[in-house]
This record gives sequence, structure tokens and C-alpha cells, in this order.
Amino acid sequence: MNVRGFSFSGLAAGIKKNGRKDFGLILSRIPAVSAGVFTRNWIKAAPVILTQQRLQQKYCQAVLVNSGNANACTGKQGMIDARALTGEAALLMQVPKDLVATASTGVIGEFLPFQSMIDHLPALCQGLGEENIDDFAQAIMTTDTVPKIAMQQGAIQRKKVTVAGVIKGAGMINPSLATMLGFIVTDVALKPQSIQALLSEGADQSFNRITVDSDTSTNDTILLLANGLAGNDPLSKQAAETSGFKVMLFSVMEELAQKILDDAEGATKVVEITVQKAKSREEAEMIARSIANSPLVKTAFYGQEANWGRIIAAAGKTPYPISFERVELSLNNIPLVRRGGIINPAIDAQVEAEMKQKRFGVTLVLNQGKHSATIFTTDFSPEYVHINAGYKS
Amino acid sequence: MNVRGFSFSGLAAGIKKNGRKDFGLILSRIPAVSAGVFTRNWIKAAPVILTQQRLQQKYCQAVLVNSGNANACTGKQGMIDARALTGEAALLMQVPKDLVATASTGVIGEFLPFQSMIDHLPALCQGLGEENIDDFAQAIMTTDTVPKIAMQQGAIQRKKVTVAGVIKGAGMINPSLATMLGFIVTDVALKPQSIQALLSEGADQSFNRITVDSDTSTNDTILLLANGLAGNDPLSKQAAETSGFKVMLFSVMEELAQKILDDAEGATKVVEITVQKAKSREEAEMIARSIANSPLVKTAFYGQEANWGRIIAAAGKTPYPISFERVELSLNNIPLVRRGGIINPAIDAQVEAEMKQKRFGVTLVLNQGKHSATIFTTDFSPEYVHINAGYKS
Repeated sequence: MNVRGFSFSGLAAGIKKNGRKDFGLILSRIPAVSAGVFTRNWIKAAPVILTQQRLQQKYCQAVLVNSGNANACTGKQGMIDARALTGEAALLMQVPKDLVATASTGVIGEFLPFQSMIDHLPALCQGLGEENIDDFAQAIMTTDTVPKIAMQQGAIQRKKVTVAGVIKGAGMINPSLATMLGFIVTDVALKPQSIQALLSEGADQSFNRITVDSDTSTNDTILLLANGLAGNDPLSKQAAETSGFKVMLFSVMEELAQKILDDAEGATKVVEITVQKAKSREEAEMIARSIANSPLVKTAFYGQEANWGRIIAAAGKTPYPISFERVELSLNNIPLVRRGGIINPAIDAQVEAEMKQKRFGVTLVLNQGKHSATIFTTDFSPEYVHINAGYKS
Repeated sequence: MNVRGFSFSGLAAGIKKNGRKDFGLILSRIPAVSAGVFTRNWIKAAPVILTQQRLQQKYCQAVLVNSGNANACTGKQGMIDARALTGEAALLMQVPKDLVATASTGVIGEFLPFQSMIDHLPALCQGLGEENIDDFAQAIMTTDTVPKIAMQQGAIQRKKVTVAGVIKGAGMINPSLATMLGFIVTDVALKPQSIQALLSEGADQSFNRITVDSDTSTNDTILLLANGLAGNDPLSKQAAETSGFKVMLFSVMEELAQKILDDAEGATKVVEITVQKAKSREEAEMIARSIANSPLVKTAFYGQEANWGRIIAAAGKTPYPISFERVELSLNNIPLVRRGGIINPAIDAQVEAEMKQKRFGVTLVLNQGKHSATIFTTDFSPEYVHINAGYKS
């Protein structure tokens, strides 16, 4: 299932110490209407700064990505490297250098192995092929255990339209922008003025609702490239909605977000935390995040223990007041707490049976307003610690 | 080394499933000027609510404490149990029931094993002895591996004065009030109007500067009881400072805080995080806490890896802007980053040698103001997960 006009490449350029694929490239045959969402960390990696600048023109034709090195906290040299690599790639592909976006992921604070990357650029460009999305997906992995790709196909104005997304996640996945690199390409035609709002709204409903470890990376980047080769009339934001394109796009984004959760570092559980009847949307979200990021809640999920007191305690530690006399708590619709009263503790065995599943849901009803929020989280396992204690080496 | 007029007791009352000591009592021969600092969690355990009410009168004569059950999220029944147990203890000791404070620690959301506790109260009261502080210290332990006691002696107005403190910590140790139960007794005479300010200031400089897992408990309680039996003229806050009592008291509190760090759940490291030259005290503190609570920073400490990029990334994820071009980062005075430039990576081996020690310090200089803050943290180990995944069982 290809996306008209997009080709992909991925190979090992010696950036990762283990010899795996670590250098990837996406090329659109023609410049694509493009938008990005980026990390909110104050410390932004060189490729983030460069790509933010270049995307101001709303067009992009190629994306050069590496794993194994974040090119973050690398100062002026980092910017020089990012400019030189994208410049050289632009020359080889014969596209304007300002139309080459870039992203990096891996260890912070080390300079890119520049010469080795330059040396591998010709092979990377020669490797471009419409069928090679899997090579690209492998090239952007860090602690991911599987490549992550999602696709949707449909018809817009009787033209066949395809959306494909590739993502990497696993760690440094956090509340403000789920920390990751993600690239979504489509052959639909979008109006330049509609693409950013569409991408931002989709990110808010997908990537921004997941958390693995509350740590915000310096490198978060999600790009959307729409090259218009499907031949439809360019869609406004309104038309993207009515034509069904928005549903296709958001399905791809949601699927990519869930793939990150399924492959989160050391995770054995994916838990949907819903807070309902809060005074405000912010209140619902902050309390859901407080539960989702609590180490004690996450270790209880790992232990498959109905230790619901930790959920209540995590909900109570934010600046937003809650009252135990009003809250109701349930797990997969089994009530645990109801307005100040503890449900029969015998329910614990039933709850713990539900927790043996890979996925379950926790719902906290505050009964103090009308707003809700949902955040997806994972558990904390000894494996998470092992992975992150030995990441650099 | 006794504290004039104070006696202690501790025994096993069947609250803990493992048969260890879980019920403790402190009695002062006469009512003591008293103050407390408590959890800022919105969900407060029954003993916290009751003790806050009783301490409004600024006097207290006894403290009844149990481990193994937090009596939190137990609604009206929890309050009834706390009142009944302290009332029965008051009768047995022949002190006014309003002068009995109480605290609990352990699992949230289960009712106290009330009958077993009532049955053990006579033995607990009979066990009171000036030498029994160690029994009491054992009775308040949860996942602590050692009892924690600190003492200081000195002379105030030529009267011998003693300060003794007992604490339990290990988990649910968090940024807003280091989550713990702590009891400090002294025979010094303090003016009732000076004791709260003295305790609050001491807590801000000791317990509130440590974090283990960013989780705020529902039960945090630190009490200070001063029975005046040393015979000095009651000290104002000013006199507490000039006489040297404040130094004695704060030394005890600091020692107790450090003992919590040394015995934190699964911790192999104690790390002092200092942020300097921030625009404000709040900025310095929020950035220090962001580093101190980052799972990725804590796992890197566990792995003894000079993965300083994670420290910079954690510093950059708060709402307070920082600039990589201005920051300087060092570990035990070995520079890692200097104003946008990476120090020679060969330094890593030297840094990692320092990280092999149990204690080390990380200093981040922001170079954007004049304010500083220090937070002590621990590492995240697989053992932390194991302890917390199986806590209830």
C-alpha cells in the first residue's frame, strides 16, 4: 500500500553502536504542503530548531532522520552539522535545501558522527523506493522493539487517497507532547492554511494523551506532508472534515499513538485513565496526568494489585481540590470507591483478575463539575529501569 | 540519652501481616507545647484530620501511632475509629482525650483492625518507658529497613536540654511535604506562640527538600512536643535562635531527613541537586525538583551513567525558560557542560567514577539570576519497583 509520490529509504550508517539501521529518508516527488508539532522543552535539539524554521514556508519535500544520536545540547556545531547534512542530501536529491526537514533521536550531548553520515548519504538516496517504508521505520527506532507503521485508504472526491504514518516512541514519552518522532505522509491535496490546525488538533487527541514516563524529550517532532498527487481539489479544514479525510488522518495518528503505548519501554500494561465530572477541562486533565505519572500507581499496575488508595492519593496531590466524600472510582466498570464509602474489599479479587489483562481502564468521577479528560499510561516495570540504566552503553 | 518526662512504647498488635511491631505510643508526663506540619494532599487520612483539630489548642500530651494501615480513604468509620482509639488510650493513661494526637501509615483504603488494636492498648500503655524509644521507632516502620532516631543535647540558660526525633520514610516521599511520619520531643520550654513557626521553618529546610518518588501521601505528619521539664524560661522564636536551641532542633530534623534518604525504597544513591543563578527562588526550586523527580535522570543515577543530557532535558521541561547557551552543569565539581559547549567527552569516565559513590552532587548554574535551591533525591532501581509492585501483599 504505497502513498503516491512518496519514497522511503533506511540503512545503517554507523551512528548506532550495535550496527542496526539508523539513517532514514523520505522524499516526495514534488514539494508537499507540510506542518509540524514539536517538543515544548526549552532545550530544543538542533534538528528541531532547523525544521521549525524551514516549515514556516509551509512546504517540505524531504525528511532526513537519524537515530542513535539526538544532536541535542550540541550548540553551534549541532546546527552546522544539521545544515550541512540536509544541504548535502538536497544536492544529491536535487531538491531545494530549504525543503529538507530533519529530525534526530538518541543520546543527548554528543556530536553527530558527521563524516560517517555524509559518506552514507549517497547510498541512502539511491535506496529510495516506494516500497521501502519498513526500512525507514526501522532506521528511526531507538529502544523500540518493533517498527511502527499505520495506514488508511479512502476516497476523497472520487480520488483514491492514502495516509501513511511511521513513528518511534518507547521512552521519554511525556505529558506535554508525547515525546517521539513521527512522520505522516499523504497524497491528498490540502490547502496550506489548513494543514497546521489539522495536525495540531490530531496531535492533541492522540499523541498528547499518552504518557510513559513524564519526561519531555528535546527532540519531539511530528511532521505531516501532503503532496496532493491524489488529484483532489485542495481541502480546507472544513472540507477535510466533511470529506472524511480528517477521520482517516486521525485514525492513523491514534493507531500510531497506541503502537507507542504497546511498545513502551518495559511496559506490561496499557491503562486508560479517565477523570469525569471535574470543574474544568484543565482540572480533569491535570488529575488524570497526576494519576498516569505516579510511580506508585504505575508500580501497582505492574504488580496487578488493586491498590486503589494510591490512585486516590495521586489524584489528591495536584493543586486542584477534590473530596473523598464525593469521588467514585472504578476499574473496568467494577466499582472500587463510591462517595466516601469503600466497596466490599472482596471485590479486590475480581479487580485483580481484570488487571491481569494487558489493557484496562480506570475511571475517577469527581462529581464536582461537567468536564472530562482521558490519558493513556503504562506501568513501571523493573525492565524499564534496566533499559534506562544502561541506555548509553 | 533520655528526654526528661517522655516515655515510649511499641509492640505488635496484629495490624501488619508479618507479625512485626506496628503500634506505638509516646507520653509526656505533663502537657507539652506542640505543633505539627501535615500533608498537603487534598485527601487527608482520618488521623491527620483529627490531629490537626486537636493541635489547634497548641498542647498535646500523647501520640498514638500505628503502621500497617493508613486509615485513609476510610470515611466516617475511619474518624470514628481514630476517636475511639485515642479516647481509650487517654482513659488508660489518664490524660485528657483532646491531648492525644494520632498518626497512621500503611495501606490506604482499609479499615483499621479496631478490635485487635483496642485489645493491645493496655499492654501498649503498660510498656511505656523512658528507655523504649527504639521500640517506638520500630513500631512506625513500613518498608523502612532500619529504625531512625536522631538526638542532640545542649545547654540553654545553664539547663541541660535534649531533643530526640524518630521518623519513618522509605516511600511516598515527595516534593510538597516529604511524606513521612516524624515525632520530635524535647524537654526545652518553648512559648506556645513560637513553636509552629519554628517547626515549619525547620521542615522547609529539611523534610521539604527531599524527594524519593514524587508521590505525596495522605498521611504525612511531623509533630514537635516540648514539655518544658528542662526548667528554662520559655523561649520565644528569637530566643530559640540566640540560645542555640534552633540549631539543635534543626540538626535533629536534618539528620532525620538524611536517614530517610539513606533508607529510601530500593535506593542505591543519594544525590544533592543544586540549581543556582535562577531568576527566582521558585524557578530554582521547580527546576531542581524537575531534575530530582525525572524517572530518566533517576535511572541514569542508578546505572552510574554520565548521561547528563537527561539532566538538561529535565531542567528544560518546566514552565520556566532556560537557555542551553547559558547553563553550566557539573557533578562533584567536575564540569560537564559550560555555556553551550560540551566539555571533552573523555571526562565521562572521571564523572562515572564519582557516581560510583553512594552520595554525590549535581549543580546546574542557569546564569540568569541570583537565586538558588537544593533538593535531595535518590535513584530509581529495579528494587523500587519490586517493593512497590508487591506492597499490599
